[in-house]
Amino acid sequence: MLFHVRMDVRIPHDLPAEQAAEILAREKAYSQQLQQSGKWRHIWRIAGQYANYSVFDVKDNAELHEILSGLPLFKFMQIEVTPLLRHPSSIREDDS
Amino acid sequence: MLFHVRMDVRIPHDLPAEQAAEILAREKAYSQQLQQSGKWRHIWRIAGQYANYSVFDVKDNAELHEILSGLPLFKFMQIEVTPLLRHPSSIREDDS
Amino acid sequence: MLFHVRMDVRIPHDLPAEQAAEILAREKAYSQQLQQSGKWRHIWRIAGQYANYSVFDVKDNAELHEILSGLPLFKFMQIEVTPLLRHPSSIREDDS
Amino acid sequence: MLFHVRMDVRIPHDLPAEQAAEILAREKAYSQQLQQSGKWRHIWRIAGQYANYSVFDVKDNAELHEILSGLPLFKFMQIEVTPLLRHPSSIREDDS
Amino acid sequence: MLFHVRMDVRIPHDLPAEQAAEILAREKAYSQQLQQSGKWRHIWRIAGQYANYSVFDVKDNAELHEILSGLPLFKFMQIEVTPLLRHPSSIREDDS
Amino acid sequence: MLFHVRMDVRIPHDLPAEQAAEILAREKAYSQQLQQSGKWRHIWRIAGQYANYSVFDVKDNAELHEILSGLPLFKFMQIEVTPLLRHPSSIREDDS
Amino acid sequence: MLFHVRMDVRIPHDLPAEQAAEILAREKAYSQQLQQSGKWRHIWRIAGQYANYSVFDVKDNAELHEILSGLPLFKFMQIEVTPLLRHPSSIREDDS
Amino acid sequence: MLFHVRMDVRIPHDLPAEQAAEILAREKAYSQQLQQSGKWRHIWRIAGQYANYSVFDVKDNAELHEILSGLPLFKFMQIEVTPLLRHPSSIREDDS
Amino acid sequence: MLFHVRMDVRIPHDLPAEQAAEILAREKAYSQQLQQSGKWRHIWRIAGQYANYSVFDVKDNAELHEILSGLPLFKFMQIEVTPLLRHPSSIREDDS
Amino acid sequence: MLFHVRMDVRIPHDLPAEQAAEILAREKAYSQQLQQSGKWRHIWRIAGQYANYSVFDVKDNAELHEILSGLPLFKFMQIEVTPLLRHPSSIREDDS
Repeated sequence: MLFHVRMDVRIPHDLPAEQAAEILAREKAYSQQLQQSGKWRHIWRIAGQYANYSVFDVKDNAELHEILSGLPLFKFMQIEVTPLLRHPSSIREDDS
Repeated sequence: MLFHVRMDVRIPHDLPAEQAAEILAREKAYSQQLQQSGKWRHIWRIAGQYANYSVFDVKDNAELHEILSGLPLFKFMQIEVTPLLRHPSSIREDDS
Repeated sequence: MLFHVRMDVRIPHDLPAEQAAEILAREKAYSQQLQQSGKWRHIWRIAGQYANYSVFDVKDNAELHEILSGLPLFKFMQIEVTPLLRHPSSIREDDS
Repeated sequence: MLFHVRMDVRIPHDLPAEQAAEILAREKAYSQQLQQSGKWRHIWRIAGQYANYSVFDVKDNAELHEILSGLPLFKFMQIEVTPLLRHPSSIREDDS
Repeated sequence: MLFHVRMDVRIPHDLPAEQAAEILAREKAYSQQLQQSGKWRHIWRIAGQYANYSVFDVKDNAELHEILSGLPLFKFMQIEVTPLLRHPSSIREDDS
Repeated sequence: MLFHVRMDVRIPHDLPAEQAAEILAREKAYSQQLQQSGKWRHIWRIAGQYANYSVFDVKDNAELHEILSGLPLFKFMQIEVTPLLRHPSSIREDDS
Repeated sequence: MLFHVRMDVRIPHDLPAEQAAEILAREKAYSQQLQQSGKWRHIWRIAGQYANYSVFDVKDNAELHEILSGLPLFKFMQIEVTPLLRHPSSIREDDS
Repeated sequence: MLFHVRMDVRIPHDLPAEQAAEILAREKAYSQQLQQSGKWRHIWRIAGQYANYSVFDVKDNAELHEILSGLPLFKFMQIEVTPLLRHPSSIREDDS
Repeated sequence: MLFHVRMDVRIPHDLPAEQAAEILAREKAYSQQLQQSGKWRHIWRIAGQYANYSVFDVKDNAELHEILSGLPLFKFMQIEVTPLLRHPSSIREDDS
Repeated sequence: MLFHVRMDVRIPHDLPAEQAAEILAREKAYSQQLQQSGKWRHIWRIAGQYANYSVFDVKDNAELHEILSGLPLFKFMQIEVTPLLRHPSSIREDDS
């Protein structure tokens, strides 16, 4: 089941640089592991913004929340979730 | 080059039903032809809304506009475009 | 799987009264059938508004969209969907 | 009498971790006690957000405010209240 | 129990003048009857707007909705309801 | 002359508790003195919010501003003012 | 007593041209009469918009509303009122 | 003196096609004449929208308004004006 | 050439009181000097807000920006500028 | 390929003055180098605001993001990007 997610990152400017770097390293590893498992299907950078559009493929709402709330950057993010489904005009078999 | 597009459809309630049906049939054919060409990479229905999130792969802004303004439903749509690029954490080679 | 849905109804003032009455009768029957099946778990009127908050229990996003887009009033509604999950503090076994 | 409540939690990032943990423990106990009394009828987590939708069953506006302003997290919350009533299409006797 | 209500009136410009006049006459009678009963405690015109702020004193949410949805102008109004309670600094015995 | 005022209070979480308590005590005394003089006609708590709706009866805009800017909590408040007048349907002689 | 008023005009495109012209002629006469009386102190066109910023000098809220609701264009306007007072830094004696 | 202008066009769907075509032809001629005179410095289409960003070089606010309000599409446009000036980091002599 | 300006002041609550007082004294002197020169034509306090509406008479956009960005409170202000011109209904010779 | 970019700068008031000055000096040098290369085509100050409207001419979305995210002020900016294309009424050969 697919979900569209927008994530905007707001790191407080007074967060120590080493602490920020450590969180970002964990964030990247966490994201890539989920991409390899197939649950985080797409991630695109939004031009000019510290933000991304992503598409997740999970079994239900609870799994989606578990993944998102486990993001190392979660407390510095504003997240917006939109449930998706196959579009009647779509020709891609695997986009539903 | 990728663009994220949200389309919201608002068909006036006093548009004759046959006219609406004819436009919708052309819209579907137009969309599927662009999907087959690879330019309209993804299209997902947004749950509960007469709307979709799409991803386009075009050579430049002008081609994107030509495609969008040529949509049979264009004058009944509200469209929002966001330029995308490869995310530094992405593991998919073809998502850029 | 639970979804929170807000529905705001806007019936155009120039819609003939009989046509409106017929749609509303179908809407009520449609809603009650889904309530009896257990898929439309809750529906509450919002005080002072022609609107409701509802909770749906469906197997996935596609089923939710099928139900909502089948509403006789669908084209006169503005609909907002929010995916829900069990709250970690909840004591109700069946609220997830 | 039913009220729909949305609560968004914003804990300042510089609040000491022990202090936050202590408040959250009190919050959970407070919520569960009210759920057991029947006054806090439903609480659902919103997917991807540090937020919940709840339904309260109280005798009047004053009791609702007393409960909400007594939340241990109250000063870190943004709260939105909507008065509800039985929907004319509802088939549940106890949803009013 | 008190509720704060804002009503904004939007009468379509193509509504026949006699029809509008007849609705407005019924609206005034309806409002004055509820004021005399004590349920519609206050009504003030907002300067420069076809709108009012009102305070209602009703026994519950259902009675408030019954009153508001019975307004002759209801379908031409945008209504916003806010539940009120006695303020801890208030010195008026009857404002709760 | 009547004015409708909404006040939302936002006390910074790092304000020392004694300082906050001292300001709140002065706020209450200030408000009650103005209520007794008749200038602060109504004050209601908004359910679930650290906010109030009030009605002031003052001789002009300048007096209103003098009262509001003198509130001990003024610098921690967001204030919205709306000028009111007697509603043509009102039956209360003293509500204008 | 001074009030700042913004007026945005939205004339429906299907209003007959003669009817629009007749309303606009009455609007201009009405405005100039009030300017000559001193009650409509300033009126400026906003560049690029069918809108104006105005300043009124009236004895109270009721007089302001009487003037604004009497505008021939009133039902095609969106109006926003802000009460003003003398600024403590002002050097103009007559701007209060 | 430079002004940044955004124009969004909303042509009513029930405007007869010939009437729309005639207005659009006049709009194009009007725009090109102003571009040739140097007053309408830039005009860019916004991708996916029936809208443009433009930059005007005029002698004052009044001339800008005269140009914009004379647009054949003026009554079907939403226009937003922002005054510009030379940026302290600019290296272009003629961009002020 | 006239411009309408709204200024909202937000002084951080942790700014030392002496520093704030010194800035405010400079702000007042700066404003009064510009009023005496005729460039700052009007300044009105907005009732209930730490904000003002002002009208400036300057020779171009650059002079307006130089004045506004030189305000001692500039970095604690949110400023909104609207270009004005003579209204066709205005009877005041000097309001253009 | 052209992009319209709005940048709003918000420097925290507690950032040390020397640190701010050093960032601003680097920002200016960075901007001027990109202007000389032709990639940053236009930059205009917005009157009364610490903000600019700019037009970039880059080969794709990725290059645009690389430039914007490399701005020394990037973490203190709010940035909004809009893809542009040649307007069908444009007479300038080099504006596409």
